[in-house]
Formats: sequence, C-alpha cells, structure tokens
Amino acid sequence: MSEEAMGRFPVPDREELPDDVRERIETETEEAGFTPNVFDAFAYKPSHFRAFFDYHDALTEDTTLEREEVEMLVVTVSGINDCLYCVVAHGALLRIFAQAPKLADQLATNHRSADLSDAHRTMLDFAVKLTDEPGRVGDAEVAALREAGFSTEEIWDITSVVAVFNLSNRMATVADMRPNGEFYTIGRGGSDGE
Amino acid sequence: MSEEAMGRFPVPDREELPDDVRERIETETEEAGFTPNVFDAFAYKPSHFRAFFDYHDALTEDTTLEREEVEMLVVTVSGINDCLYCVVAHGALLRIFAQAPKLADQLATNHRSADLSDAHRTMLDFAVKLTDEPGRVGDAEVAALREAGFSTEEIWDITSVVAVFNLSNRMATVADMRPNGEFYTIGRGGSDGE
Amino acid sequence: MSEEAMGRFPVPDREELPDDVRERIETETEEAGFTPNVFDAFAYKPSHFRAFFDYHDALTEDTTLEREEVEMLVVTVSGINDCLYCVVAHGALLRIFAQAPKLADQLATNHRSADLSDAHRTMLDFAVKLTDEPGRVGDAEVAALREAGFSTEEIWDITSVVAVFNLSNRMATVADMRPNGEFYTIGRGGSDGE
Amino acid sequence: MSEEAMGRFPVPDREELPDDVRERIETETEEAGFTPNVFDAFAYKPSHFRAFFDYHDALTEDTTLEREEVEMLVVTVSGINDCLYCVVAHGALLRIFAQAPKLADQLATNHRSADLSDAHRTMLDFAVKLTDEPGRVGDAEVAALREAGFSTEEIWDITSVVAVFNLSNRMATVADMRPNGEFYTIGRGGSDGE
Amino acid sequence: MSEEAMGRFPVPDREELPDDVRERIETETEEAGFTPNVFDAFAYKPSHFRAFFDYHDALTEDTTLEREEVEMLVVTVSGINDCLYCVVAHGALLRIFAQAPKLADQLATNHRSADLSDAHRTMLDFAVKLTDEPGRVGDAEVAALREAGFSTEEIWDITSVVAVFNLSNRMATVADMRPNGEFYTIGRGGSDGE
Amino acid sequence: MSEEAMGRFPVPDREELPDDVRERIETETEEAGFTPNVFDAFAYKPSHFRAFFDYHDALTEDTTLEREEVEMLVVTVSGINDCLYCVVAHGALLRIFAQAPKLADQLATNHRSADLSDAHRTMLDFAVKLTDEPGRVGDAEVAALREAGFSTEEIWDITSVVAVFNLSNRMATVADMRPNGEFYTIGRGGSDGE
Repeated sequence: MSEEAMGRFPVPDREELPDDVRERIETETEEAGFTPNVFDAFAYKPSHFRAFFDYHDALTEDTTLEREEVEMLVVTVSGINDCLYCVVAHGALLRIFAQAPKLADQLATNHRSADLSDAHRTMLDFAVKLTDEPGRVGDAEVAALREAGFSTEEIWDITSVVAVFNLSNRMATVADMRPNGEFYTIGRGGSDGE
Repeated sequence: MSEEAMGRFPVPDREELPDDVRERIETETEEAGFTPNVFDAFAYKPSHFRAFFDYHDALTEDTTLEREEVEMLVVTVSGINDCLYCVVAHGALLRIFAQAPKLADQLATNHRSADLSDAHRTMLDFAVKLTDEPGRVGDAEVAALREAGFSTEEIWDITSVVAVFNLSNRMATVADMRPNGEFYTIGRGGSDGE
Repeated sequence: MSEEAMGRFPVPDREELPDDVRERIETETEEAGFTPNVFDAFAYKPSHFRAFFDYHDALTEDTTLEREEVEMLVVTVSGINDCLYCVVAHGALLRIFAQAPKLADQLATNHRSADLSDAHRTMLDFAVKLTDEPGRVGDAEVAALREAGFSTEEIWDITSVVAVFNLSNRMATVADMRPNGEFYTIGRGGSDGE
Repeated sequence: MSEEAMGRFPVPDREELPDDVRERIETETEEAGFTPNVFDAFAYKPSHFRAFFDYHDALTEDTTLEREEVEMLVVTVSGINDCLYCVVAHGALLRIFAQAPKLADQLATNHRSADLSDAHRTMLDFAVKLTDEPGRVGDAEVAALREAGFSTEEIWDITSVVAVFNLSNRMATVADMRPNGEFYTIGRGGSDGE
Repeated sequence: MSEEAMGRFPVPDREELPDDVRERIETETEEAGFTPNVFDAFAYKPSHFRAFFDYHDALTEDTTLEREEVEMLVVTVSGINDCLYCVVAHGALLRIFAQAPKLADQLATNHRSADLSDAHRTMLDFAVKLTDEPGRVGDAEVAALREAGFSTEEIWDITSVVAVFNLSNRMATVADMRPNGEFYTIGRGGSDGE
Repeated sequence: MSEEAMGRFPVPDREELPDDVRERIETETEEAGFTPNVFDAFAYKPSHFRAFFDYHDALTEDTTLEREEVEMLVVTVSGINDCLYCVVAHGALLRIFAQAPKLADQLATNHRSADLSDAHRTMLDFAVKLTDEPGRVGDAEVAALREAGFSTEEIWDITSVVAVFNLSNRMATVADMRPNGEFYTIGRGGSDGE
C-alpha cells in the first residue's frame, strides 16, 4: 500500500525507518485504522518528518483555536492552493471535528458560499488573502481579525495554520501525495444534515 | 423545500408556473427522487428556464462526447469558477456516469492531480484555459485538441460545454443556488474504488 | 460569403439546414440587410443554434432592462473577454440603440473612462467583476446594485446578460467568428455627437 | 474646446504658453485640421510637453519601423492598458497609415484575432508580454523577435514604442484625456474594405 | 567598461557619439566618479538618449516633489516591475537623497513594510496601482492623493515619475542594462541608522 | 532591542522563556554577534519556535544542496512573496555563503537578470512557479529539474526549502518582523566584486 503513498518520490520501507518515525506511523495507523499517506511520504526524509509533525502537533495541541477552526483554515487554504491530498484528507478531518458533513466541500470550493458565522468568514477571508497575496497583508487585514473578536494569540495561531499549510500544500503537490481512499468518504453521514 | 433553492431571489410557487416548466420540474423530480434546486431557481424566469435547459439538453443529447466527458468538463470548469452548486451537483453526476467515486473531488480540486488519460488531460487543460483566459485561446490550443485525437465536432462540443457552464456558474453564484443535500453523497460508494 | 463566417469550423450550406434555422437566418438577413455571421456560425449545430438564440431572444424581449443597457453590458463583458466578434457586432448595436456613436468604443476599452450615469457605472462594475472573478461576487456586489436602484428582477436580468455573453464570447473566440464588415461602421454618424 | 482636453487637470490658456509649445500646437492643428487633445493636455507642464513629444518624434522619425508598425504597437499596448485616449486617437492613425479600416478595432480588442503576418503577430506577442509582465521578458522573448526576422535595431525600436506608450497610457488615464470626436471616425472608410 | 553596460545591444564607442551626447556622459561621469551604465546604453540611439534624459531632467528639476520623493517612487515602481538596473541604481540615489540607508531595500521589497509617513504610504499605494493596473486608476485613487494632502501639480508630478519609470524599467530589462558595481554599495553607511 | 523584533506581537522577556529556547537564542547571538530578530519573534510561542528551527536546521544540515543554493532559493522565494525580513536577513546570509556581494540584490529583484549557471536558473524558475502557482506545478516542472541534473533527493530538498519559506514569509509579514540593521550591510564588501 505504502508504495502508492506518493507518485514522485520513493516511499521508504517502514522496517528501515528510525524507531521514532516508525513508532509515530504505527500510532497514527492504530488511531485512524489505516495509515494516512502523508506519514509514509514524509518518512522519505526523517529529519523533515520530525519537524513537520512537531509543527503540526503544536498547531493542534498548543492552540487557542478549536480543532474544527484549524481544519476550516486548512481546507480553505488547500482549496486556494489546489492541493488534492490536503483538501481530501483534511476535508475528512473537518467533517469529523465539525460534525458538519457539507462544510468541507463548501470551503474547498468557495468559503463565500459556505454556512459560516461572521467571525469565521472574516477568519477565512484573512486566510485566503494571506495565501494568495502574502505581501499585501498588513494592518488593515490584522485589524479586521481583531474587530471580529480574535485575540492576539488567536491571530498568531490563525496565521501559523495558514503558513504551515502553505508549506504542506507545496510538499504534497510536488510529491504527488495520494489521498487514501478512506478520506474521500469518512464523515459524510447521510444527506440529511447541514 | 423549494423556498431554499437559492438565497438571493424568490423561488416561485410551482402551481403558478407555466405548464411546460412545471411538467419539466415534475419529470426531473421523478427521475432523481428529489428536485434539483437549479430547476426551482431558473423557474424564476420561465423564458430563461426554457432556453437554459434546452441548451443543457442539447449538450448532453446531441453530442459526440460521452456523458462522463461532459460531466468531467463541467466539474473542472466549475472548480475554476469556484461555483458551489455546480461542483457539488455535477460532482454527483460525474460519480454516477463515470462510476468513479473519487474523480469528482480530484477534478474539482486540481485536474492535474487526477487519474486521467492523456486525451482527457488535454481536454481539461483546454477547458481551464478557455475558462480562465478566454481571449488567449487560439490556434495552438485548438491544435492541441486535434493532436490528442479530438474531431472537429468534438472540439465544438467541448467548447460548448465549457461555454455553457461559464454561463451556469455565474447564474448559480449570483443567485446563491444551494446544492441539495443529496448531491453531496450520491455515488460515493465505499472507500475501496478509484 | 458565409464560408468566411468563422475560421475554425465549416459553415453549413443554408439549403441543408432545418427549416426553422434557415427561416430565422432569412428573417435576420432581411432585417439587417446582411447576414450577421453569428447565425451562419451557430448553424453548425442546429440544436445549439435554437437554444442560443432562444436565450438571446429572452434576454432582449422578456427583460426589465432597456435594450441599450443590454448592449452596454454585452460590449463591456466582451471587452474584458477580448472577443472580437462580440465587441464589433454589439458595438454596432449599442451605437444604434443608444444613439451614442462613441459609447461602444469607450466601453470596449474601459468603462471607467466612459460617459455614464452613476447607476450604469455600478452596473458595469458588477459586470466586470462577475466576468473576471465569478467566485468573488457575493452579498456586497449584489447590495451595490440595489443601492444604485436596481430591482430584484433587474439584478437577475443583468446577471443573465453577463452570464450569456460569457458563453457567447467563448464560442465566438474558439470558432474564430469574423465580424461582418458592416458592423465596424454602422451607427458611427459624424464626428460631432457624443 | 481645449477646456475639455482632459478631465483631471486644468488645461492652460494657449496664449500663456511658451512660444515653442504654442507653435508646436499650431502646427499640429494645421496638419490635422483640429487640435488633438494630447497637446493641450501635456501643455500643463511645458518641460514635460517638450520631452514627451521629442520622444514621440524620435520614435516615428528616427526608426527602422514602418509608421504603420509603430501604430500597430501603440494600439495593441494601449488596448492592454485600457487607455481610452490612446486606443481611439492611435486607432485613427493606424487606420490612416495602414489603410486598413478594421485593423485598429481588431488590435484594440485582441491581436490574436487580427489579420496579421506571422512577423507582426510575433512583434505584438512581444508587445503584450512586455506590457503585462515586464519582469518576465528575457532571452526567449528577444530570440523570438530575431527568429521572426527583426534586426537588433528593430528590436530596440519595438521595445521603445512599447515603453513610451506604457508611459503615455498612464499619463492619459490619470489625466483623463478625452479623445477628440474626430478620432472615433477618421479613416473608417466604407464597410467594403479589408 | 562600457562594453558591459548592457547585455542585449552593442554599446557605441564614445568617440563616435554626437557631441552633445558625449558631453552629457562626460558631465555625469565627473559628477558620479563613474559612468552610470544607463548613459552608455541609451547612447545606442542618440535621439532616444536626448528625449529620455530631457524627461528625466524635467522630472527632477521642474517638480513640486522633493528629490527623495522622486526616488522613493522610482524604487517602488522598479521593484514592482522587477527591474534590476533601476532598483539598484535608484536605490543608491534614494539612500543618498533621503539619507536613509535602509529605505531603498524596504521599498524595493514591499513598501507596506517600510518606515513611511501616511502621506508617503498613500503616494506609494498610488504608484503601485498605477504600475500594476493602469486601467483601474480613476477618481477614487486620485481623491486618495488629494486627501493625503497632495496638490494638483504634485499629483501630475507623481503620475509622471511613475509613468516615465514604467518606460525606463521596460527599456532596462529588454536591453539587460547592468547596474554598475558602485550602485550596490553607495550610501549604505553603517548598520546604525534607520 | 528585542522589543522591536516585530511590530504586531509582543516579544517575550528572555528570562521567562523555557531553557532550551533561551539557550538556542544565546547560541545564535554568540555566533552572529547580535540576535537575529526572528528568534525573539518566534519565541512568542515556544512550541512553534522549536518546530520552526528544527525544520530550518534540517534544511541546512541534512541536505544534498550547498548552503549557498539554499540561500539562493530563500532570497528568490522571499522576493516573490515581498517579505522584507527574509529578503534582508537571508540576503546577508547569501552574500556570506556565496561570497557574492551582488547576487542577493539580483535574486531579490529578478532572478532572470542574475548571473547564474543554467542549472541554478532552472532551480529558481521552479522555485518561482512553486511559490506563485503551487497548483500548476506538475510533471513538466519536475522533469525540468531532472534535465538540469538534479537528483531525486535534491528535488525533494529544493521543494522543501521553497515550502518552508512560503511558511516563513507569511509568519514574518503578518508579525511584521523587522530585519536587524546589521543584515542590510553584512557581506557587501567593496564595489569591486561580482
């Protein structure tokens, strides 16, 4: 299975990985019930694997944001950057954490058409501009976040999620990381919710 | 239900619609098992309803393209134009007609990361350029379609699908047409296929 | 003559066209004194011919807009999309319907430099944004039309003209439809008017 | 008349202009039969008037290009920059110098749809790229001009016309220079030519 | 040395230049202590040399702007246009005239991150928009300059600097003018200032 | 001094930082002779500090690239993203590691005008496209790197540098990190080198 984790770099054998990398992959596999391909892909270079997932852990564990807000940011940014792996894998996470079966498809397509609070709309407007035109983000954009009620630390955390997934989208696209089949369907529930 | 078909224009009562419009809606409802919101939305102006669905019928019935090719074009164009209704509704149609549960999400995100034949990749490259930069499509782009094996009539038909959904995307976005809940999940099958 | 109606698809013999298509062409020819090339071009596929001109008829006959407003929208949209046939042919129509010999060249070049009422400027700002960035049109843009005095049905009609000519521009450019020579000069009057 | 030469700066009284500036305006008026508004506009600042028209004279008199090639470049560049004054005034000059009543409208809209030799198409491709993305013009673009047969001095002259009208377009747009009514109609001939 | 003034056109022998051109070069060389390569480059065509430097002289001598404001505009515009010669050479001039060793690098990178007064920030916002999207500059942008305190003549002068360097950047990039080594280091002072 | 490390978030007191973070800052300060502001800035959130610098260490220590190649990529990417801190700070590092006093200014302005080997030009073309249009990087762009001689691991490492500085540029711009004065002048040498 892991041979297909990405299309443009060889996926290393798990047995040959450093212990900490292999153990992290095993833990993730147990939790998810399958191995998300991003783990096998980043294992191509263990020093990058460690730094990337440490950053990811920091973003989701040492944060002022709700987990569903993190995933809303990720799906929106990844939609702007046209990143298949991140849209599909984090779309699944968003459906689970937000318990909202439609929200991921809405954000991946156009956050302006999504069912959102005003604060979340402002948060995602910021994410889109910081992704598309990073040099044009300044006082006005940061002030809009404050006016929407976000604290200083929340602004740092929002910025960090956008920044890290601007990294992640570029790695996934160049590596041609393939979303696991599970991610396409997880959390879609029935057609009844919104 | 039909009150929510779109967010920015009033949806007419079905009983007050001209007979031909109401009958078309009833036929569609029977076939799908629900009324796709685009029908209630376009009924706002019956003369537009008739012309739009006549064009749509021509594109899918009087064509050299396979139905799944039509839907591949629609999903790709609608992804470029960030049109929620069209991505979600035609994503469902593509999953059904192509019997490919993952293809719609791939094309809506980035056709370059999708599993495609070379001819279909060329077809979608053309669709993206004609959508994004219509004034820059010329001899070279048409020649690329020919080299990929498309006939003169197929080129007309490809162009027509792209053109009509550049109409459709703009109507759906301004009207704020809402995808029916069913469209988000139809045809996703299990997580086993690709 | 009709052989030159478009550069990239064969123009069908009129005698071989279905009666309704041939009759529509004859009517148009009588009215204009020549056959606008768009009719011979769309006759390539009669089912598309019928749907396209039905939509066009609906836009100009079943509308809350003045005919000159329709043509102002068409010329502006076609200028953004760099569509030669539509700029030249509808430029002529705009000169005639608005009795304004300069307006078409102004709108085709830059509606911001044209002599316009505030309401028409807002209408054309909307047309430009919906053409250029359809996914970014939302509540603010629709509200601007309302504030400029446009009714709900006028907003639908404005959107429809923009949408249909986003279709038309793409067909004309890919088909390489050639503006009839007459269109370049009709309605230019003397150099005295504005 | 001269009060209306531009919309955003006051037009100076001719009697108060320095002799050389006034004389140049008189000469131009005699030749054209009217005073092109660009002369009254630039007279706002005589030092700029002199430098601008000296550059313009150099481009048209000390050049390896045909005058119609200069005007083809000007109309194409001005179309890209959406400059009303330059499109309309130089459109008239192009119709006269090229004796081609349709060419100006074609180039102002989309040079890809114009009737051009291959060399002229390459020349205008270069002009469009140098106007739109000046930092992305390099060896490949210059080599394309050479392969199309342009000499070193012709490449300098082409570049200079593009560069000077990137100046001129910005002055005319900010000043809101108004094209004289005459320019809209000069050289259109009948509908019989091309 | 002068052989290397530019990469894509031959640099003429100074002895063969017209007297006025050679004398201007000699004067500049005495003043600067070296010959800025732009002089040897433009000498390729003396008629262009004269018009270009006359315009440049008018911009810096017959102006309502401070010299450092002229250079702030030049560096900002040249940064947007990615013009190496102009960024490096006028960066040196800005460091000297503004006595600000860091300002040039700030403006060349992103004027939004520079240490500026509000009026200068507005001036440079205008310069960026007029450079990037000349057809979209209109009443609102000119009004913003007025509200920041700029007079009518200052607005003409600001526009003129932006316009002329949109010319200059295109000539320098196509000619591949090489910044003299001196320009990279002049005026950098120590690391103590700001 | 550290109070001014960034403009939009409070800089923490060093005494209150976790030991490992404080020690890293002290080591960097000793090595550089001053504290680069990025360290005080990222200390705002120690978990992010650790992950960011671990990634940075991996990019520069566990790599197939020369250190000067890493810095060439950083300066080019940061120039595209208009990031003041990264252009100025890494410009200094590039001058030192490449022993090339002019190269940083060239790459920050326009890598097409820089003095580069063909392989490095291809490497930077890739970096620009992956920064500007991440969704459009595919087989052709990766193949161009291979044809220029880059190995599979080098392609991973190039991609990683581009990706991480797309993170870093966004953090630095939103935080308004200020380049230390030293970075503006380090490594500029005399005006004699190239």
